This record gives sequence, C-alpha cells and structure tokens, in this order.
Amino acid sequence: SKTAMKRISVKQLAPKGLRFDSWVGHRPRPGALPGTLVIKPDALPTRVTLIAYGEINFIEKDIEDPKEIETFLKEWPVVWVSVEGLGNKQILKDISDVFNIHRLALEDVVNTPQRSKVEEFEDTFFIIQRLARWTDTVVTEQLSLFFSKTFVVSFQESHEESLKPIRERIRNAKGRVRQYHADYLAYAIMDTCFDNYFPVLEGISEKVESLEKQIVADSEEVAIPDIHRLKRQLLTIRRAIWPHREMLATLLRTENKILTKDTRIYLRDCHDHVIQIIDLVETYRELISGLFDMHLTYISNKMNEVMKVLTIIATIFIPLTFISGIYGMNFNSGTSPYNMPELHWYYGYPFALSLMGLTAMGLIYFFKRRKWI
Amino acid sequence: SKTAMKRISVKQLAPKGLRFDSWVGHRPRPGALPGTLVIKPDALPTRVTLIAYGEINFIEKDIEDPKEIETFLKEWPVVWVSVEGLGNKQILKDISDVFNIHRLALEDVVNTPQRSKVEEFEDTFFIIQRLARWTDTVVTEQLSLFFSKTFVVSFQESHEESLKPIRERIRNAKGRVRQYHADYLAYAIMDTCFDNYFPVLEGISEKVESLEKQIVADSEEVAIPDIHRLKRQLLTIRRAIWPHREMLATLLRTENKILTKDTRIYLRDCHDHVIQIIDLVETYRELISGLFDMHLTYISNKMNEVMKVLTIIATIFIPLTFISGIYGMNFNSGTSPYNMPELHWYYGYPFALSLMGLTAMGLIYFFKRRKWI
Amino acid sequence: SKTAMKRISVKQLAPKGLRFDSWVGHRPRPGALPGTLVIKPDALPTRVTLIAYGEINFIEKDIEDPKEIETFLKEWPVVWVSVEGLGNKQILKDISDVFNIHRLALEDVVNTPQRSKVEEFEDTFFIIQRLARWTDTVVTEQLSLFFSKTFVVSFQESHEESLKPIRERIRNAKGRVRQYHADYLAYAIMDTCFDNYFPVLEGISEKVESLEKQIVADSEEVAIPDIHRLKRQLLTIRRAIWPHREMLATLLRTENKILTKDTRIYLRDCHDHVIQIIDLVETYRELISGLFDMHLTYISNKMNEVMKVLTIIATIFIPLTFISGIYGMNFNSGTSPYNMPELHWYYGYPFALSLMGLTAMGLIYFFKRRKWI
Amino acid sequence: SKTAMKRISVKQLAPKGLRFDSWVGHRPRPGALPGTLVIKPDALPTRVTLIAYGEINFIEKDIEDPKEIETFLKEWPVVWVSVEGLGNKQILKDISDVFNIHRLALEDVVNTPQRSKVEEFEDTFFIIQRLARWTDTVVTEQLSLFFSKTFVVSFQESHEESLKPIRERIRNAKGRVRQYHADYLAYAIMDTCFDNYFPVLEGISEKVESLEKQIVADSEEVAIPDIHRLKRQLLTIRRAIWPHREMLATLLRTENKILTKDTRIYLRDCHDHVIQIIDLVETYRELISGLFDMHLTYISNKMNEVMKVLTIIATIFIPLTFISGIYGMNFNSGTSPYNMPELHWYYGYPFALSLMGLTAMGLIYFFKRRKWI
Amino acid sequence: SKTAMKRISVKQLAPKGLRFDSWVGHRPRPGALPGTLVIKPDALPTRVTLIAYGEINFIEKDIEDPKEIETFLKEWPVVWVSVEGLGNKQILKDISDVFNIHRLALEDVVNTPQRSKVEEFEDTFFIIQRLARWTDTVVTEQLSLFFSKTFVVSFQESHEESLKPIRERIRNAKGRVRQYHADYLAYAIMDTCFDNYFPVLEGISEKVESLEKQIVADSEEVAIPDIHRLKRQLLTIRRAIWPHREMLATLLRTENKILTKDTRIYLRDCHDHVIQIIDLVETYRELISGLFDMHLTYISNKMNEVMKVLTIIATIFIPLTFISGIYGMNFNSGTSPYNMPELHWYYGYPFALSLMGLTAMGLIYFFKRRKWI
Repeated sequence: SKTAMKRISVKQLAPKGLRFDSWVGHRPRPGALPGTLVIKPDALPTRVTLIAYGEINFIEKDIEDPKEIETFLKEWPVVWVSVEGLGNKQILKDISDVFNIHRLALEDVVNTPQRSKVEEFEDTFFIIQRLARWTDTVVTEQLSLFFSKTFVVSFQESHEESLKPIRERIRNAKGRVRQYHADYLAYAIMDTCFDNYFPVLEGISEKVESLEKQIVADSEEVAIPDIHRLKRQLLTIRRAIWPHREMLATLLRTENKILTKDTRIYLRDCHDHVIQIIDLVETYRELISGLFDMHLTYISNKMNEVMKVLTIIATIFIPLTFISGIYGMNFNSGTSPYNMPELHWYYGYPFALSLMGLTAMGLIYFFKRRKWI
Repeated sequence: SKTAMKRISVKQLAPKGLRFDSWVGHRPRPGALPGTLVIKPDALPTRVTLIAYGEINFIEKDIEDPKEIETFLKEWPVVWVSVEGLGNKQILKDISDVFNIHRLALEDVVNTPQRSKVEEFEDTFFIIQRLARWTDTVVTEQLSLFFSKTFVVSFQESHEESLKPIRERIRNAKGRVRQYHADYLAYAIMDTCFDNYFPVLEGISEKVESLEKQIVADSEEVAIPDIHRLKRQLLTIRRAIWPHREMLATLLRTENKILTKDTRIYLRDCHDHVIQIIDLVETYRELISGLFDMHLTYISNKMNEVMKVLTIIATIFIPLTFISGIYGMNFNSGTSPYNMPELHWYYGYPFALSLMGLTAMGLIYFFKRRKWI
Repeated sequence: SKTAMKRISVKQLAPKGLRFDSWVGHRPRPGALPGTLVIKPDALPTRVTLIAYGEINFIEKDIEDPKEIETFLKEWPVVWVSVEGLGNKQILKDISDVFNIHRLALEDVVNTPQRSKVEEFEDTFFIIQRLARWTDTVVTEQLSLFFSKTFVVSFQESHEESLKPIRERIRNAKGRVRQYHADYLAYAIMDTCFDNYFPVLEGISEKVESLEKQIVADSEEVAIPDIHRLKRQLLTIRRAIWPHREMLATLLRTENKILTKDTRIYLRDCHDHVIQIIDLVETYRELISGLFDMHLTYISNKMNEVMKVLTIIATIFIPLTFISGIYGMNFNSGTSPYNMPELHWYYGYPFALSLMGLTAMGLIYFFKRRKWI
Repeated sequence: SKTAMKRISVKQLAPKGLRFDSWVGHRPRPGALPGTLVIKPDALPTRVTLIAYGEINFIEKDIEDPKEIETFLKEWPVVWVSVEGLGNKQILKDISDVFNIHRLALEDVVNTPQRSKVEEFEDTFFIIQRLARWTDTVVTEQLSLFFSKTFVVSFQESHEESLKPIRERIRNAKGRVRQYHADYLAYAIMDTCFDNYFPVLEGISEKVESLEKQIVADSEEVAIPDIHRLKRQLLTIRRAIWPHREMLATLLRTENKILTKDTRIYLRDCHDHVIQIIDLVETYRELISGLFDMHLTYISNKMNEVMKVLTIIATIFIPLTFISGIYGMNFNSGTSPYNMPELHWYYGYPFALSLMGLTAMGLIYFFKRRKWI
Repeated sequence: SKTAMKRISVKQLAPKGLRFDSWVGHRPRPGALPGTLVIKPDALPTRVTLIAYGEINFIEKDIEDPKEIETFLKEWPVVWVSVEGLGNKQILKDISDVFNIHRLALEDVVNTPQRSKVEEFEDTFFIIQRLARWTDTVVTEQLSLFFSKTFVVSFQESHEESLKPIRERIRNAKGRVRQYHADYLAYAIMDTCFDNYFPVLEGISEKVESLEKQIVADSEEVAIPDIHRLKRQLLTIRRAIWPHREMLATLLRTENKILTKDTRIYLRDCHDHVIQIIDLVETYRELISGLFDMHLTYISNKMNEVMKVLTIIATIFIPLTFISGIYGMNFNSGTSPYNMPELHWYYGYPFALSLMGLTAMGLIYFFKRRKWI
C-alpha cells in the first residue's frame, strides 16, 4: 500500500512541473549579437491593447499596427499599451521603435526568464517583475514594464488577466488612477503583481499546515516527495521575490522627475510588502526544514520500536527453544545413567516447563527494568 | 503507553495554535484599491478612550464620536487616544480623518499582521509594533502608534490591558510622563511593549530548561512535538522582534523636531533591550537545535543497546540450539557404527552439555573482549 | 549488481577529472622573483593572430614576430591580438613589451589559474576571466584581456575557438562592432565568455533533473558518486563565476576615459547575466543538497521496511518453532502421567496445530494494530 | 555500567549551572517606570572602597557614606571608587547622585545581566563589561564602569578580587598608571577583564582536548552530556565576549576629550585581544561540532559491527539448524522407502555432517568475498 | 584488523599535533602590566643578523650587541635586521630600543600566537604575519615585521630559513630589490610568506584527493580520524590566512609616505594571492564536508546490505525449520488417527520436503519482487 502511494506521488509529480529548463531559459547561442531576440517555440501569439485616459474620459482600442499608437501619445495625458504573448517578433520590434526602447532591454523582455531589476534610461524606467499565480502549484511569468511620465508599456508572457482589476479601475474612475500621471499607473501594476504573492503564500501555508499535521500525527502516509515539492515551490517563490527588494530600493533611491513624491510613498508601501513576503518565505523554509528533521526522528523512533519487538520476542523464545532442543536429543539413556536421566524423572516434563517459565520471567523482568516494555 | 502519550501530545497541540494563516493574514484581493480596509471576521468591536493631560491635571473620557477629539486637541498639551478592537470601519475612518492619517497607514493598521516598521509623515510618526504575551504559549498582536509633539493615537487588536500601567502613571503623575511631550508618552508605550517580551522569554526558558533536563536524563518521555512547538514559538517571537531593531535604528537616525534629545536617550535604551531580546532568542534557538541533536544521538545509542542485547542472546543460543539439533537427529545407529555413536557413549549427554558450555563461554569471552558486556 | 554498478561509476569518475591540482595551479617556488613566469609542462604552443579593423575595412594576419604588431597599431583604429596557447615564453614576453604590460600582470596571465579580477594600469585595463565549456563535465580555462581605446590583447590557454563568432561579426561587419572602439570589442569578448556559462548550466540542469527523477522514483540505482560529481562541478562553476561579479562591479565603478557611456550600458547587461548565473548555481546547489537529504531518508525508510519484514517473519515463527520444539522432547511418558500426556491425547496433534495457529493469529493481529502490515 | 555513568553525569550537571534564568535576568515588571531598580534576592551586600592617587602619593579608604567622596574628587587628580555587591539600593543611589549618573544607566548597573556596551554622557563614559572566571565551568559577572578624565566608578556583582592586581600597581607605582589620567585606569580595568578570558579559554581547551582524545580513541565512555555542557559553556563565553567588540570599536570611533591619544593605542590593543578571543571561541565551537559528527559516525560504525556479528553467526547457524531439524523428523521409514532413507544409510550421519560443513564453508566464503570477515 | 588500523591512527595522531594550547598561547597572568614579555619555556635562543645594502654594494654581519646597528642605520640606505628565535629577553628589548618600538608591539612579537594585523606608528609600520610550512602537517609560526623607509626588522620564532631566497636576491642584486627602498624589501618578505601557503595547499590537496578516492571507492579502510585531522589542518590554515586579508586591505588603504606607488601595485598582487588562498581553503572545507556526508551514506548503505542478507537468510530458513520442527514432534499416532498421520504416509517425507521447497520459493519470489535480490 505504501509502495502504491509512493508511485502515485511520483506520477502526480511529473505534470506539476519538476522541470528545470525554465530556470535556465532560452538564450541566444554564445557569441550572438547583443540584442538578439529568441522567440520561444511555445510563445503565445502577441495581442496588443491600448487604453488611454485623462481625468475626464478614456478610450480603449485593440492595436493591429503599433504605429497607430503615436497619435494617442500626442493626444492623451496617459497611454497604457498592454502586450500579451511574446510570439510575434515583428510587432515587438515595432513597439520598441515607437517607444524608443533599447535593444538590450527588448532582449530581456523576450528572452525570459530574467531576474527582476530596474534600469533607468534617459526619460524612461525599465522594470522586470515576476508575476506568481497559485494553481495548486506556483506558476510564474515575467512582467516587463516601460514607463515615463506619460506612458506605460507592459509585456506579459501569457494571456492571463492579472491586470484586469486595474483596467476596471481606469474605466470606472475608481480611486485616483485617472487623476495621476503614468508613474501612478506603473505603481498600480507593480502593486498588483506583489498582491498576487499573498494568495500563493496562502496556498503554500495550507500545504505546510496539512504536512505538519501529518508529521505531528506521525502518519505512515507522509510522502517525502511532497516535502520535496513544497521545498521546490518555496525555492521558486524565493528566487522570484528576492530580487524585487533590491529593485524597489533602487527605484526609490533614484533621483529623477518621473516619480512624484506621492507615488514614492505608495512605492515605499510596496517595498514593505515585498519584505513581508520574503519574511514569510524564509519562515516557511525554516519550518519545513524543521518538519523534515522531525520526520527523520520519527523514522528512527519507529525503527527502534520495531527492533525492540524483535529483540523481546527473539531473546525470550530463543533460549526456550534451546531448552526444548536439549530434551529433544536422542541420547540413549539405556547406555548410562548420565544420559539424560531427566527424561525419566517423575516430574521431568513439569520440571522442563518450569525451567522455561523461569527463563522467560527472568528475561521479562530484565526488559521491564530497562523500561523496554 | 508511548503511543498514548504521543496521541495526547497531538491533541494538546491543536488548541495551542498550530495554525499558519495568521502569518499570512487577511489581505484585500489582488488588484484592490490601495488603502482598502479588510475588517477581519473575528475582529473585536472598536472601543475608543481618550486621556488628555498637562503638568497639573488630566481628564479621561470614553469617545463615541471621534469628532469630539478635536476640542481636546486644542485645549490640552498632550492627548492620547487609545483604540482597542479593529471591528468598526467607520470609527476607524473618522479617527484617521481627525488626525489626518494617510490611507495606506490606516490600511496597515487594519490589515494585520504587518511587519514592525516606522514611517515618517510630515509632522507625525507612524509606528507598527508587535505586542507579545505569554499564556503558556506566545500570543502576539499588532500595536500601531501615530504620534506627533502633541498627540498619540494607539491602535490595538485586542481589549487586553497591556498599556494600563502607563495610564496609571499618568493618573498618579508618577515619573516624568506628565512633564514631557507626547513623544515621551510614545516612548513609554513602546518600552512597555518591549518589556512584555521578557516574561515571554522567561516562559520559554522554563520550557527549554525542563526539556533539557528530560533529554539529559535520557527520558523515554521526550516528545518530539514538544521540541517542535518550542521551535515554533521561538520562530514566532523572532519574527515579531527582529524588525523592531531596524525600526528603532531608523527612528533614532531620523532628524526631526518631534523627538527631543531626552526621549532619544530613552529610545537608545529601548534599542539595547531589543538587541538583548534578539540575542536571547538566537541563543535559545541554538540551544534547542543542540538538544535536538543530542536527542538523536540518544536514539541511536538506544538502538545500539537494543541491538547488542539481541546479538548477544541470539549469537550465544543459536549455536547451542544447533548442537542440540544435531543430537536430536534420528540416524539409525543400528545400521552402521558411523551413525551418531555419541548417543550411545557412556558420557554422551555430559559431553554434549560440555560442548554447549564451552561454546557459550567462548562467545561470552569474545563479547567481553569487544567490551559489549 | 549494485557493486558492479558502483565500480563502473568509480572508473567513470577517474577520467572526468577528480583531480585537485588544477585548483592550486603551478606556482613559482616561494621566494621567487615577482614576475617569474612558470610555463606549465602541458602548455600548448603559442599561436598569435591579429585582426585590425576600421568602419570600412579589416585585415587579418598570423603573427610570427610580435614586433610586426607595432605598425598595425599606428595604422588601424582598432587592433585585436589574439594569443592562443601559453607555451612559448619568449613570444609572450615580446608581446608584453609591445603593449607595455606590467610583469606582474604577465605573471598572472601565465601562472594559471588565477581568480577573475580587473586591474587598471595607466591607460589600459587588465581583466582575468574564466571561460567554461560543457563536455559532459565542466571544463574551464583562463581568458586574460588587456585593452585600451585602440587595442585588445586576449590570452587563451587552449586553442578552442570560443571567440570565433566575434571574429565572424568583425569580418561581416554584423552589429556595431566595426563602428565602435576597442572597449566595445573587449565587451563583446567578455559577453561571449558569460554566454558560454548558460549551456554549461543547461548541461548541469539535465543531470540534476535526471538525478531528481531517479531519487523521487526511489530507484535502487542512485549512485552517490554521481551526486558527489555534480556537487563538484557546481563547486567548480561557482568558484569560476563568483569573482566576475566583483570584477564587473569594479569595472563599472571605475571612472576613466577608456569605457564609453554606451559600452557601460552593455557591461551593465553583462553584470545582470553574471548575477543570474550565480543565482542559478546557488539554486542548484541547494536543490542537490535537498535531494541528498531525501535520498538519505529513503535509505532509512528502506532499512525500516527490511527490518519490519524480518521482525514479522521472525516473531511469528520463533514462538511456533518453540511449540513444535516442546512436543519434540523425549520425556518418557511411561515413567509418570505428568510426562507429556498431550502426546497421547486423541486430539493431541490437532491441539498443537491449533495452538500454533492461534499464536500466529494473535501476532498477526498485534502487527495489524501497529499498522506494520 | 554505562547507565550508572550517565546518571552520575546528570547529577554532576545539575550543580554546574544548567540553569537558564540568569540569561533572562531579573527585570522590573512590564510598564514599570524607566529607571526602576530591582535588587536581586541573592545580591551581595554593597561594599565601597576608594583609592585616590596622583603621581607622588595615594590614599585608600573604605567608604560608608558616599558623600565623603566629594572631597576626594576635589583634592586628588584621579579617584577610583570601587563598588562590590549590588544589594544596597540606597548606597547605589547616593553614589549615582555624587557622580551624576543617569537613572537609566544605574538601572543597567543593577538589573543584570545586560549586554556589553558603551554609552557617552556629557563628560563621562558608561561601559558595561562581563567578567569571566574559570572554576571548572564558566562563571560570568557584570562589571560596569563610569569614567571621566578624573574619576572611575566600577560596579561589580561579586566580592571577587579580580581587580586586585591594578590596585597593587597603583600602590607600588608600578607601570605608568600613576602618571596618567583616569582614562588609563579605566583602560587598565577593561584590559584586566579581557585578560581573564584567556585562562577560561585554556580551561575550555583542556576539556576539548580530553574530549577529542576520548572520541578519537573511540571510547565507550564518551558522555553526550559532556559535549552538551562544553557547547553550553562556549555559548556563554560567546554571548559574553561578542558585544565587547562593538563596544570597543564604538569607544575608539568616538571623538571626545576624555580619551588621550596614548590610551587609544592601548585600547586598540584591547580590541585586538577581543578579536582573538572571539576567533578562538568560534574555532572551538566548530571543532566541537566536528567532534560531535565524528562521534555519531562511530556510533553508526559500532552498530554496523554489531549487526555484522549477528548476521554472520545467525546466517551460518540457521541453515545448519534447519538441516539438523530435517533429520530430526519422525517420518516412518517403515511405511515406504521414500520416508527418510538417509537415516538408514551406512554413512548417513557423516553425510549430514558434511552437508552442514559445506554449507557453513560456502557461507563463510560468501562473507569473506564481501570482506565482512 | 579494522580495530588495529584505528589504533595505529590514534597513535599517529598524537605526534602530529592534536594539541590546542598553541591556539591560546602563553599569556601574562590577568592584570599584568601591559607590555609584559613572557618568554616561552621552549623559545629558541635569539640570533640577530644584519644585511645592509644600497644600489651598488651590500654588507652582512652577525650582531652580538644591538647597539652596533645604529651605525649601519646612519651609513646605509636600507638596513634589514633579522631576529630568529625569541628566547633572549634582553636582546629583544635592546633591539626595540634601537628602533623605538612600542612596548605593546614588542609584547605582541613575543607573546605568540597573535592574529595577523597591521599597526601604524608614527614613521613605522608594524605587521604580524603567520608563516606556514608543510611537513606532512601544517606548521605555522609568527613572523613580525617593523619597517620604515630605511629599515626592516623581522622577528621569527624558529631558525627556519624561509627568508633565505630574499637574502640571495639581495646578494646577487637579482630583481629590483637593491634599487628600491625598505618598503619593497618588506613587500618581498610578506610575499614570500604568502608564497609558502601554496605548497601547504598542495599538500592538503593531495591528502584530500587520496581521501576522496578512498571514499568514492567505498573502501573499508576510511579512517574517520584522518578526515578529522584534515579538517583540523584546514582550520589551522584558515585561522592563519583569514586575518591577512584585512591586514593587507588596511595597509593599502592607509595614506602615508612609507609605501611608494610601485610597492602598492606589488602589494595589490599579494592581496589577490591571499584571496586566492582563502578561496581554496574554503573550497577544500566544503569538499571535505561533502566527503564526510558521502561516507555516512555509505555506512548506512552497508548497514542496509548487511540487514538484507540477514533478513533473506533468516526469513527463508526460519519457516523451513518450523516445518521440520512440526514433523519432529512425538505425538503418538497409535493413540488416534489424528495424531500426525503424515508421518506414515507413503510419500510423507517427499511431501514435507516439497512443502519446504515451495515455502522457500515463495519467499524468494517475494524478495525478488521487492528487488532485494
């Protein structure tokens, strides 16, 4: 039954992404021109949508030809171009031309995964973040942002609607997003990204809690691969979240005109959230490591118990069997009076049984004194 | 009996808060407006009390409508508004309006748990601390403070009277609290918060000590879940206390007019206490980890002892039983003189017994030389 | 079979470079003159090639006498002298004379391995890097660079064509290399060096993944030496890559006229890559350490299972054998009615068999309750 | 015997201070007035002695009423007031009045243990140190110093004469203490405090060495509680010495008029000693941890040996016993020629014995090939 | 045989310096005057030699009376006084008078071992280094240097000729030592000191390599004390080399007139070597720790194998022996037809043998399915 359970675990493991390659990622071959774009074979088709707004009104549009964007840039206070799916090299290049994006930056957008970071170009910021989602495991994707005072360009790998709530807030003029510049919009996107880590941590916490209960209850069903998978997921979250801390600190330290004082207060809040997420991740890591040690101790204890049962039974019965073996010998008592006279005693058999009984009681007393039973 | 004990431990474990969710806390859903207040389902009703004082007199009042506070602010040198229980969204908002509290700060007050931190707003400080209490386990709650030169607003999650001694000191004009500004009151509240960690550490230290005695005495009754629970509690204290260090360092580093030179000396003292608490927590952590290793060694040693007993008994009696088995064979000695002539020897039986005795003595000598017995 | 497999592993291990000496390297004897060159016994013969270029044209030449280089330096905007193989002391000294290389720097070029570093001399930079290649194991070699605004001298230990893609780009005027100064060429060489780490990490990742699958599947075939070899390889990569981080940070921090603003942006990108490589190496290290722990747990679990089978079989049959031993005793029932009357009962044999059956069932019930079977 | 030894160890353990409470210390209850003095129940009675000196002469006096001190302060270049025992609250308060000691500082003097630190008040320094003594275990006590250019006040918990050598040097005008200011005296006291750690480390080193010899000699007598006690003692020393490093660094960094340039050179020397002590403590900690691992390996090896002996004896004799069991069966050879004809063979018994001998030899060969014997 | 080998190891261990006391060293008793010299009982007699040189010529002389040195100091550009053996207190004091050495510095020269450090006195530098030598184990001694622009005084504990190569270079005017000031000579001495670590690391590397081969080959002969001794030696090297890093960094950071720009370039090279040595030491430490883990796994695996053999043999033969035991019972088949009728069957014995054979085959099949055999 245990073997069966293990096999199931292994099977479950496979589809849940025990694959490393996404960590290294797809790269141009060594010596390639800097700025070479390597479109991944499984990249999704590129969809471009635009939302432009001012304090009073807003407009939404699906973009086919990136050159259309330029008119919006001239006419509207804030323009947000959202690019979903990184499968179409030409569209990506056209957009980078419209916004004057450095070719190394565009390379980082496409050749995922990159570490989270911020880079400052003359009048724009370039930010790389990792979005995390909980679908019974951790799924991450890269979110790249370019923003200035007047525009935000966001690049997502998937077509997931993680940024939909912000779009809703723009449409409904909820909160202050419509009154502020593009830097506030960029903040709102970043913040949403960090907010998404909390449900992931809740997912993790549930798994850790159930694991803890199993281990504390000393359940036979504790699957080592489960612990490993949990460790793996925490490793993934950790790798994703850690660099954000430095990214935000750098962003807050930078002196420039794009970030207003108000937005800085909001970003400081983001920074606190990131530190809180890191703190939680590290705590869970430590906890799991403690659980693992505890599980090892239970294994040792269990072995001890098994050994004790074996030892008690064996050491009681082996001497008894020896005694019975003695009186099973066929020495010819007719040849001499020294040959097994016990066999012919009147109380021979009761004597042998008593001998056995006394031996057993002695051993049981010995075990009791050692507190084995 | 051991199994019974373990089961009890597991039961005891459950009510003592082996729950993680409080670590992640209740959060607005991803993409929510910054500043969204999420009132927890188990939040206590909000009670607001005010104490205003000058060097000569003081006044206390229960506040129903936060707007009443404004008159006190105008008339008294120092006003302390104490909010206990975070269940009433409207009252919290009204208070934040009176004191002009930033909506992100108010969000941090309500959406507990937050990491301890200090933030500076134009003429106020915003401080988050964690209060710790020892009720045979560690219970923590968030204490949020806003203070300027003339007022302090404190927010507590529970209705616990942790701050009562300060109220007493104000009433009795004990110490210098009545002669100083609101920054000294804020210090006094912070200091009380740190003071509360020492009884917690005493509780922990008693548990560690009794665990140490059990383990050193090599007691059978050492419950692994107990070690785990202790580790857990230390983890909780550690997570609670660590960020205070940075908080106080930041507060002391900040140049501003709110903190007087005198209060800074007192805060430096707080800083020393925090470092001392951290130092103790780390020492206990290391100690428990050492105890755990020691316990593992005892388990191994015990296994060794069990194995030795089994080996000694089994390896002595197995050869003896074999000998008795030989002379229990039924070869027909009538067919040939080679078939078990020993059975018919005059001293056959004594010979067999001597053979067994010699074998046993040889083995016992072997074990003695190996220092097994 | 397992032993056989292990022996094979050990054999495989030997040619794959379980040798330390390359870590310490060949050094002059203590007290030798600073700047002493120690040509390694296995150093390859020195080959010098030159490629000089401007925006419009380029020239390539194999150099026999390093003094030829001087004319090129006068006539061409950028000159790249590539030295492959460090076996010819005289040629190396002649080149260092042409470019005015400090004798300590030349010592570092020849007395490999050195740690990666950057040193600034008046109008040149001296950079040491480690190239890594994946040939089913990690092979590293030292790449030393001297560069100024107008020339680059590169020294490689092997004759490997790692830098061929850059030569191609110069020939085909692909990218901007022909329009920029020598600092961009130096960047291109450095970048190629870092690019080479990603295939190495892919190789490692495949090995880790297959090891992970084996361990999760609890395969008997897990070879501990394989884990050790992987750890070793990661140690090698780690030692190679870590110092590059500081090297690049120093290079970026240095104020000088050699590095243009454009090249700095490109170097910043290199810096990001290095951090990403370090991040991956550390993650793999942690993962392997987790796998090792997991494997240890499986070993313990397996032992537990083996012990259980032994215990179950032994503790069931030992008492049964004892009973059969009793009724195999030869007490003379003719002497007294107390001597084994059971042997003469009508249902004596069925009674004995039932006794055995009941004993066995009792024990099986005991094991079932303990959830051992 | 082993159990007996263990019990003795546990008894020895108890009086050697396996108590934690001194780590947390006695504290005022939470919310108490800052500056509250809590006299410990076991505090020793306060003894105050004064020694005043100039370059030419000196005077010593036992002080009953602290107000006497003021006249000495006016008349002598340097006054050293030594307070031993912290049991008398009134005397302590009087002394603090004479020297204008801040109430928070006095609280730190009395409410031991505090972490070592330095604090600067207007014209005095306040220093907390831990004195360590070796009495077969580590005993520490708090030494608090206040000093200015003209006076030193030292507070010790015990009546131990740790500072006697300095008093002797003042009396005999040995060294330069009589020519220098009070800052040199303060240095001399601090230095003596650090000097006392070296005998402690020598004591530790002897214990570690004897433990190491025991473990390397693979002695049965290795007492795990001994390792634990040693770890504990190192933990105590470590906690005591570490903060001194920061204390001295802060003291050396501070710009002020109290410390002369000469004294700074001497304090720099102290700083080196502290670093050396820390270095030794960390080295011993690492060594002990290595010894512990080594001991665990020996336990495992021993278990292996025990198991091997059991396995060899059991697997040789169990098949032999089986063979003897076969020929002990009572099949009626009269009924059919198939029923145990061997029993009636001419060489039946020798055949059986040979069969057993061959089986045993085969098994021994198998074990030899596995290098078990 | 294994026990024999272990005993030899232990004996070998003793002379190879498993002694701690040299770590703590000989110190003045607590409270002694600062600057007290404690001549070690085993200190070697002091030998003083002088070598003075300029660009054109040089002179060498054995010094009996340190006062002679003063004339050389006046007449020659560079004077190097080499003191070997620290046994003669008076000569040491006389030399310190000639060169105006601070008494605390002289104390550090004599009271070895001290941590490596640099201290700046008005116009001299005081440097403490540790020389390391490989004599099948690591032997270290203290090398203390005082140097200014015109002289170097070196103090060595032993009479070893570690600095002979430099003397040779001065005699032969090899390299630039004769053209430079005393700071270059000091550099040359320091550099030689670091050069001596590489042969030590080669010695270590050979030991590690042979240990690695043993462990990978899973040899029975792996001696745990060997691993421990290696760890110990690395600990010694580590303690010796680490402080040099800070020492050199401090020396390079210091602004002064003694160190010329040229010498600084050479010292930067020393700094690189030190970092390389540290890097190697840390790598070896990590490797050994990995080897230790690997060895533990082999021990566990071996135990598993032993247990498997026992389990297989025992669980096959125990049931068979039981069957033979049954048919060895003496139930009287004459009393009733139920009493062991099998004994009288025509095919009774073949039936019993078949029953045994089937049982054995069943068990073997069970083990095969579990992949135990």
